[in-house]
Amino acid sequence: MPKVSDSHRAERRRQILDGARRAFARDGYQGATVARLEEEIGLSRGAIFSYFPSKWDLFYSLASEDQDRFGRLWLAEGFESVVRRICDEDPEWVGVYLEAGRMLRTDPARRELWLQRNPELRTAVGEHLAVCQADGVYRSDLPVESIGAFLGVVLDGLAAQIGTGFPVDADGTLTLVRAALAPK
Amino acid sequence: MPKVSDSHRAERRRQILDGARRAFARDGYQGATVARLEEEIGLSRGAIFSYFPSKWDLFYSLASEDQDRFGRLWLAEGFESVVRRICDEDPEWVGVYLEAGRMLRTDPARRELWLQRNPELRTAVGEHLAVCQADGVYRSDLPVESIGAFLGVVLDGLAAQIGTGFPVDADGTLTLVRAALAPK
Repeated sequence: MPKVSDSHRAERRRQILDGARRAFARDGYQGATVARLEEEIGLSRGAIFSYFPSKWDLFYSLASEDQDRFGRLWLAEGFESVVRRICDEDPEWVGVYLEAGRMLRTDPARRELWLQRNPELRTAVGEHLAVCQADGVYRSDLPVESIGAFLGVVLDGLAAQIGTGFPVDADGTLTLVRAALAPK
Repeated sequence: MPKVSDSHRAERRRQILDGARRAFARDGYQGATVARLEEEIGLSRGAIFSYFPSKWDLFYSLASEDQDRFGRLWLAEGFESVVRRICDEDPEWVGVYLEAGRMLRTDPARRELWLQRNPELRTAVGEHLAVCQADGVYRSDLPVESIGAFLGVVLDGLAAQIGTGFPVDADGTLTLVRAALAPK
Protein backbone atom coordinates (compact mmCIF):
# COMPACT_ATOMS: atom_id res chain seq x y z
CA MET A 1 0.00 0.00 0.00
CA PRO A 2 1.27 3.51 -0.78
CA LYS A 3 2.22 5.61 2.18
CA VAL A 4 -0.40 8.22 2.97
CA SER A 5 1.18 11.60 2.33
CA ASP A 6 1.24 14.38 4.90
CA SER A 7 -0.85 16.63 2.70
CA HIS A 8 -3.45 13.88 2.28
CA ARG A 9 -3.52 13.46 6.06
CA ALA A 10 -3.93 17.21 6.53
CA GLU A 11 -6.80 17.30 4.03
CA ARG A 12 -8.54 14.38 5.70
CA ARG A 13 -8.09 16.01 9.09
CA ARG A 14 -9.67 19.21 7.74
CA GLN A 15 -12.56 17.26 6.19
CA ILE A 16 -13.21 15.53 9.52
CA LEU A 17 -13.10 18.75 11.56
CA ASP A 18 -15.33 20.68 9.14
CA GLY A 19 -17.89 17.89 9.04
CA ALA A 20 -17.81 17.47 12.82
CA ARG A 21 -18.40 21.18 13.29
CA ARG A 22 -21.46 21.04 11.04
CA ALA A 23 -22.76 17.94 12.82
CA PHE A 24 -22.26 19.44 16.30
CA ALA A 25 -23.90 22.72 15.25
CA ARG A 26 -26.90 20.92 13.74
CA ASP A 27 -27.45 18.18 16.31
CA GLY A 28 -25.65 19.40 19.43
CA TYR A 29 -22.79 17.59 21.12
CA GLN A 30 -24.90 14.78 22.58
CA GLY A 31 -27.09 14.64 19.48
CA ALA A 32 -24.14 14.19 17.10
CA THR A 33 -24.07 10.40 17.22
CA VAL A 34 -21.27 8.48 15.55
CA ALA A 35 -23.66 7.62 12.70
CA ARG A 36 -24.46 11.31 12.17
CA LEU A 37 -20.78 12.24 12.33
CA GLU A 38 -20.05 9.60 9.68
CA GLU A 39 -22.82 10.94 7.46
CA GLU A 40 -21.81 14.61 7.76
CA ILE A 41 -18.09 13.93 7.43
CA GLY A 42 -18.45 11.35 4.67
CA LEU A 43 -16.01 8.88 6.24
CA SER A 44 -16.39 5.72 8.29
CA ARG A 45 -16.06 5.76 12.07
CA GLY A 46 -12.84 3.79 11.69
CA ALA A 47 -11.32 6.54 9.53
CA ILE A 48 -12.62 9.34 11.79
CA PHE A 49 -11.37 7.82 15.01
CA SER A 50 -7.97 7.02 13.50
CA TYR A 51 -7.47 10.81 13.38
CA PHE A 52 -9.24 11.75 16.63
CA PRO A 53 -9.41 9.24 19.47
CA SER A 54 -12.88 10.33 20.68
CA LYS A 55 -15.83 12.62 20.06
CA TRP A 56 -14.54 14.88 22.82
CA ASP A 57 -11.20 15.19 20.97
CA LEU A 58 -13.09 16.34 17.89
CA PHE A 59 -14.84 19.07 19.86
CA TYR A 60 -11.67 19.98 21.76
CA SER A 61 -9.75 20.39 18.49
CA LEU A 62 -12.48 22.62 17.05
CA ALA A 63 -12.61 24.70 20.24
CA SER A 64 -8.81 25.03 20.19
CA GLU A 65 -8.98 26.30 16.62
CA ASP A 66 -11.60 28.87 17.72
CA GLN A 67 -9.46 29.93 20.64
CA ASP A 68 -6.45 30.28 18.38
CA ARG A 69 -8.42 32.35 15.87
CA PHE A 70 -9.94 34.64 18.51
CA GLY A 71 -6.64 34.96 20.38
CA ARG A 72 -4.81 36.05 17.24
CA LEU A 73 -7.57 38.52 16.43
CA TRP A 74 -7.30 39.91 19.97
CA LEU A 75 -3.54 40.43 19.57
CA ALA A 76 -3.87 41.91 16.09
CA GLU A 77 -6.93 44.14 16.48
CA GLY A 78 -7.83 44.25 20.17
CA PHE A 79 -10.70 43.07 22.36
CA GLU A 80 -13.43 44.97 20.51
CA SER A 81 -12.80 43.02 17.31
CA VAL A 82 -13.15 39.80 19.30
CA VAL A 83 -16.54 40.92 20.60
CA ARG A 84 -17.75 41.82 17.12
CA ARG A 85 -16.52 38.54 15.67
CA ILE A 86 -18.23 36.52 18.41
CA CYS A 87 -21.47 38.37 17.72
CA ASP A 88 -21.15 37.22 14.09
CA GLU A 89 -20.56 33.57 14.97
CA ASP A 90 -23.12 30.93 14.06
CA PRO A 91 -25.41 30.66 17.12
CA GLU A 92 -25.83 26.95 16.39
CA TRP A 93 -22.14 26.41 16.87
CA VAL A 94 -21.85 28.73 19.91
CA GLY A 95 -24.65 26.73 21.52
CA VAL A 96 -22.45 23.63 21.48
CA TYR A 97 -20.18 25.37 24.01
CA LEU A 98 -23.07 25.53 26.48
CA GLU A 99 -23.36 21.75 26.34
CA ALA A 100 -19.58 21.38 26.58
CA GLY A 101 -19.53 23.65 29.64
CA ARG A 102 -21.69 21.30 31.57
CA MET A 103 -19.45 18.35 30.65
CA LEU A 104 -16.38 20.26 31.80
CA ARG A 105 -17.95 20.91 35.18
CA THR A 106 -18.53 17.23 35.88
CA ASP A 107 -15.03 16.21 34.79
CA PRO A 108 -12.27 18.01 36.75
CA ALA A 109 -9.39 16.43 34.77
CA ARG A 110 -10.92 17.48 31.47
CA ARG A 111 -11.64 20.95 32.88
CA GLU A 112 -8.02 21.36 33.98
CA LEU A 113 -6.81 20.46 30.47
CA TRP A 114 -9.34 22.91 29.01
CA LEU A 115 -8.11 25.74 31.24
CA GLN A 116 -4.48 24.99 30.37
CA ARG A 117 -4.93 24.72 26.60
CA ASN A 118 -2.87 26.96 24.36
CA PRO A 119 -0.68 28.44 27.13
CA GLU A 120 1.49 30.55 24.75
CA LEU A 121 -1.56 32.35 23.42
CA ARG A 122 -2.93 32.94 26.91
CA THR A 123 0.42 34.40 27.93
CA ALA A 124 0.51 36.58 24.81
CA VAL A 125 -2.98 37.98 25.50
CA GLY A 126 -1.95 38.68 29.12
CA GLU A 127 1.10 40.55 27.87
CA HIS A 128 -1.05 42.48 25.41
CA LEU A 129 -3.31 43.57 28.29
CA ALA A 130 -0.26 44.63 30.33
CA VAL A 131 0.94 46.73 27.39
CA CYS A 132 -2.51 48.35 27.17
CA GLN A 133 -2.12 49.24 30.85
CA ALA A 134 1.43 50.55 30.40
CA ASP A 135 0.35 52.65 27.41
CA GLY A 136 -2.49 54.23 29.38
CA VAL A 137 -5.21 52.62 27.22
CA TYR A 138 -6.49 50.57 30.19
CA ARG A 139 -6.47 51.58 33.84
CA SER A 140 -3.39 50.42 35.73
CA ASP A 141 -4.78 50.50 39.28
CA LEU A 142 -5.88 46.86 39.01
CA PRO A 143 -3.86 43.69 38.43
CA VAL A 144 -3.81 42.61 34.78
CA GLU A 145 -5.49 39.36 35.89
CA SER A 146 -8.57 41.28 37.02
CA ILE A 147 -8.81 43.00 33.64
CA GLY A 148 -8.47 39.67 31.85
CA ALA A 149 -11.02 37.96 34.09
CA PHE A 150 -13.54 40.77 33.54
CA LEU A 151 -13.14 40.60 29.76
CA GLY A 152 -13.56 36.83 30.00
CA VAL A 153 -16.86 37.29 31.88
CA VAL A 154 -18.08 39.67 29.16
CA LEU A 155 -17.11 37.26 26.35
CA ASP A 156 -18.68 34.28 28.13
CA GLY A 157 -21.83 36.27 28.84
CA LEU A 158 -22.19 37.27 25.19
CA ALA A 159 -21.48 33.71 24.07
CA ALA A 160 -24.06 32.33 26.53
CA GLN A 161 -26.69 34.73 25.17
CA ILE A 162 -25.80 34.05 21.52
CA GLY A 163 -25.79 30.30 22.13
CA THR A 164 -29.24 30.62 23.72
CA GLY A 165 -30.52 32.55 20.71
CA PHE A 166 -31.00 35.86 22.54
CA PRO A 167 -30.33 39.14 20.75
CA VAL A 168 -27.12 40.87 21.90
CA ASP A 169 -25.98 44.49 21.63
CA ALA A 170 -22.26 44.57 20.81
CA ASP A 171 -22.05 48.38 20.67
CA GLY A 172 -23.82 48.98 23.98
CA THR A 173 -21.69 46.34 25.68
CA LEU A 174 -18.47 47.81 24.29
CA THR A 175 -19.37 51.35 25.42
CA LEU A 176 -19.63 50.11 28.99
CA VAL A 177 -16.56 47.87 28.79
CA ARG A 178 -14.57 50.89 27.57
CA ALA A 179 -15.73 52.93 30.57
CA ALA A 180 -14.89 50.07 32.94
CA LEU A 181 -11.31 49.90 31.65
CA ALA A 182 -10.63 53.62 31.17
CA PRO A 183 -7.72 54.99 33.20
CA LYS A 184 -8.82 56.73 36.42
CA MET B 1 -62.51 10.20 48.75
CA PRO B 2 -61.62 13.31 50.77
CA LYS B 3 -60.91 16.45 48.80
CA VAL B 4 -57.21 17.22 48.61
CA SER B 5 -56.67 20.44 50.57
CA ASP B 6 -54.88 23.45 49.14
CA SER B 7 -52.13 23.20 51.74
CA HIS B 8 -51.60 19.54 50.87
CA ARG B 9 -51.33 20.50 47.21
CA ALA B 10 -48.85 23.27 48.04
CA GLU B 11 -46.73 20.84 50.06
CA ARG B 12 -46.75 18.26 47.29
CA ARG B 13 -45.82 20.93 44.75
CA ARG B 14 -42.88 21.96 46.96
CA GLN B 15 -41.80 18.34 47.38
CA ILE B 16 -41.85 17.85 43.62
CA LEU B 17 -39.90 21.05 42.86
CA ASP B 18 -37.28 20.40 45.55
CA GLY B 19 -36.75 16.82 44.36
CA ALA B 20 -36.63 17.88 40.71
CA ARG B 21 -34.01 20.52 41.50
CA ARG B 22 -31.82 17.90 43.22
CA ALA B 23 -32.29 15.47 40.32
CA PHE B 24 -31.47 18.10 37.67
CA ALA B 25 -28.41 19.28 39.62
CA ARG B 26 -27.13 15.72 40.05
CA ASP B 27 -27.91 14.24 36.64
CA GLY B 28 -28.35 17.27 34.37
CA TYR B 29 -31.53 18.10 32.49
CA GLN B 30 -31.20 15.33 29.92
CA GLY B 31 -29.82 12.91 32.50
CA ALA B 32 -32.76 13.40 34.87
CA THR B 33 -34.94 10.62 33.45
CA VAL B 34 -38.50 10.18 34.63
CA ALA B 35 -37.33 7.19 36.72
CA ARG B 36 -34.67 9.32 38.41
CA LEU B 37 -37.15 12.13 39.01
CA GLU B 38 -39.54 9.63 40.63
CA GLU B 39 -36.76 8.31 42.83
CA GLU B 40 -35.50 11.72 43.96
CA ILE B 41 -38.98 13.20 44.45
CA GLY B 42 -40.43 10.08 46.08
CA LEU B 43 -43.62 10.15 44.01
CA SER B 44 -44.85 8.28 40.95
CA ARG B 45 -44.69 9.82 37.49
CA GLY B 46 -48.48 10.01 37.53
CA ALA B 47 -48.42 12.17 40.66
CA ILE B 48 -45.54 14.33 39.41
CA PHE B 49 -47.06 15.03 36.01
CA SER B 50 -50.46 15.80 37.51
CA TYR B 51 -48.76 18.89 39.02
CA PHE B 52 -46.42 19.75 36.13
CA PRO B 53 -47.36 18.73 32.59
CA SER B 54 -43.76 18.05 31.45
CA LYS B 55 -40.13 17.90 32.51
CA TRP B 56 -39.64 21.29 30.87
CA ASP B 57 -42.42 22.75 33.07
CA LEU B 58 -40.57 21.46 36.12
CA PHE B 59 -37.39 23.22 35.05
CA TYR B 60 -39.26 26.35 33.96
CA SER B 61 -40.97 26.59 37.37
CA LEU B 62 -37.65 26.22 39.19
CA ALA B 63 -36.02 28.83 36.94
CA SER B 64 -38.96 31.19 37.52
CA GLU B 65 -38.50 30.79 41.28
CA ASP B 66 -34.80 31.63 40.86
CA GLN B 67 -35.64 34.66 38.78
CA ASP B 68 -38.16 35.81 41.33
CA ARG B 69 -35.68 35.38 44.19
CA PHE B 70 -32.85 37.17 42.35
CA GLY B 71 -35.17 39.90 41.09
CA ARG B 72 -36.43 40.66 44.61
CA LEU B 73 -32.87 40.68 45.90
CA TRP B 74 -31.91 43.11 43.13
CA LEU B 75 -34.77 45.47 44.11
CA ALA B 76 -34.04 45.19 47.84
CA GLU B 77 -30.25 45.27 47.90
CA GLY B 78 -29.01 46.14 44.42
CA PHE B 79 -27.09 44.43 41.65
CA GLU B 80 -23.99 43.69 43.73
CA SER B 81 -25.95 41.44 46.07
CA VAL B 82 -27.25 39.52 43.07
CA VAL B 83 -23.70 38.93 41.86
CA ARG B 84 -22.58 37.72 45.29
CA ARG B 85 -25.60 35.43 45.62
CA ILE B 86 -25.01 33.92 42.17
CA CYS B 87 -21.38 33.25 43.10
CA ASP B 88 -22.68 31.30 46.12
CA GLU B 89 -25.11 29.20 44.07
CA ASP B 90 -24.60 25.47 43.71
CA PRO B 91 -22.52 25.05 40.50
CA GLU B 92 -24.33 21.77 39.82
CA TRP B 93 -27.61 23.61 39.61
CA VAL B 94 -26.22 26.57 37.64
CA GLY B 95 -24.85 24.07 35.12
CA VAL B 96 -28.39 22.96 34.31
CA TYR B 97 -29.00 26.43 32.83
CA LEU B 98 -26.26 25.80 30.26
CA GLU B 99 -28.16 22.75 29.05
CA ALA B 100 -31.44 24.65 29.10
CA GLY B 101 -29.87 27.47 27.07
CA ARG B 102 -29.19 25.16 24.22
CA MET B 103 -32.76 23.88 24.29
CA LEU B 104 -34.10 27.42 24.21
CA ARG B 105 -32.06 28.22 21.12
CA THR B 106 -33.56 25.37 19.13
CA ASP B 107 -37.14 26.19 20.17
CA PRO B 108 -38.18 29.77 19.29
CA ALA B 109 -41.64 29.51 20.89
CA ARG B 110 -40.18 28.28 24.16
CA ARG B 111 -37.49 30.99 23.99
CA GLU B 112 -40.12 33.71 23.53
CA LEU B 113 -41.99 32.47 26.61
CA TRP B 114 -38.72 32.38 28.51
CA LEU B 115 -37.88 35.97 27.60
CA GLN B 116 -41.38 37.15 28.56
CA ARG B 117 -41.60 35.35 31.91
CA ASN B 118 -42.29 37.39 35.01
CA PRO B 119 -42.96 40.70 33.20
CA GLU B 120 -43.84 42.67 36.39
CA LEU B 121 -40.48 41.86 37.93
CA ARG B 122 -38.63 42.75 34.73
CA THR B 123 -40.44 46.07 34.67
CA ALA B 124 -39.66 46.67 38.34
CA VAL B 125 -35.94 46.01 37.79
CA GLY B 126 -35.99 48.36 34.79
CA GLU B 127 -37.59 51.06 36.95
CA HIS B 128 -35.02 50.45 39.67
CA LEU B 129 -32.23 51.00 37.13
CA ALA B 130 -33.91 54.22 35.94
CA VAL B 131 -34.06 55.45 39.55
CA CYS B 132 -30.34 54.65 39.94
CA GLN B 133 -29.76 56.83 36.88
CA ALA B 134 -31.98 59.65 38.15
CA ASP B 135 -30.26 59.56 41.55
CA GLY B 136 -26.83 59.85 39.95
CA VAL B 137 -25.73 56.39 41.08
CA TYR B 138 -25.51 55.18 37.47
CA ARG B 139 -24.54 57.22 34.42
CA SER B 140 -27.50 58.72 32.61
CA ASP B 141 -25.91 59.25 29.18
CA LEU B 142 -27.08 55.80 28.03
CA PRO B 143 -30.58 54.34 27.70
CA VAL B 144 -31.62 52.28 30.71
CA GLU B 145 -31.94 49.28 28.35
CA SER B 146 -28.20 49.42 27.62
CA ILE B 147 -27.42 49.39 31.34
CA GLY B 148 -29.78 46.44 31.87
CA ALA B 149 -28.37 44.53 28.89
CA PHE B 150 -24.80 45.04 30.12
CA LEU B 151 -25.64 43.81 33.62
CA GLY B 152 -27.38 40.82 32.02
CA VAL B 153 -24.20 39.99 30.07
CA VAL B 154 -22.18 40.15 33.28
CA LEU B 155 -24.62 37.89 35.16
CA ASP B 156 -24.80 35.40 32.30
CA GLY B 157 -21.01 35.39 31.98
CA LEU B 158 -20.57 34.66 35.68
CA ALA B 159 -23.27 31.97 35.55
CA ALA B 160 -21.64 30.35 32.50
CA GLN B 161 -18.29 30.23 34.30
CA ILE B 162 -19.80 28.93 37.56
CA GLY B 163 -21.83 26.31 35.68
CA THR B 164 -18.65 25.19 33.92
CA GLY B 165 -16.84 24.87 37.26
CA PHE B 166 -14.42 27.74 36.66
CA PRO B 167 -13.32 29.97 39.56
CA VAL B 168 -14.87 33.46 39.46
CA ASP B 169 -13.81 36.70 41.12
CA ALA B 170 -16.91 38.56 42.32
CA ASP B 171 -14.98 41.50 43.82
CA GLY B 172 -12.82 42.13 40.74
CA THR B 173 -15.86 41.92 38.48
CA LEU B 174 -17.84 44.34 40.64
CA THR B 175 -15.01 46.89 40.74
CA LEU B 176 -15.08 47.06 36.94
CA VAL B 177 -18.88 47.04 36.70
CA ARG B 178 -18.95 49.98 39.12
CA ALA B 179 -16.54 51.92 36.90
CA ALA B 180 -18.58 51.06 33.80
CA LEU B 181 -21.75 52.49 35.34
CA ALA B 182 -20.28 55.49 37.17
CA PRO B 183 -21.69 58.87 36.07
CA LYS B 184 -19.45 60.65 33.59
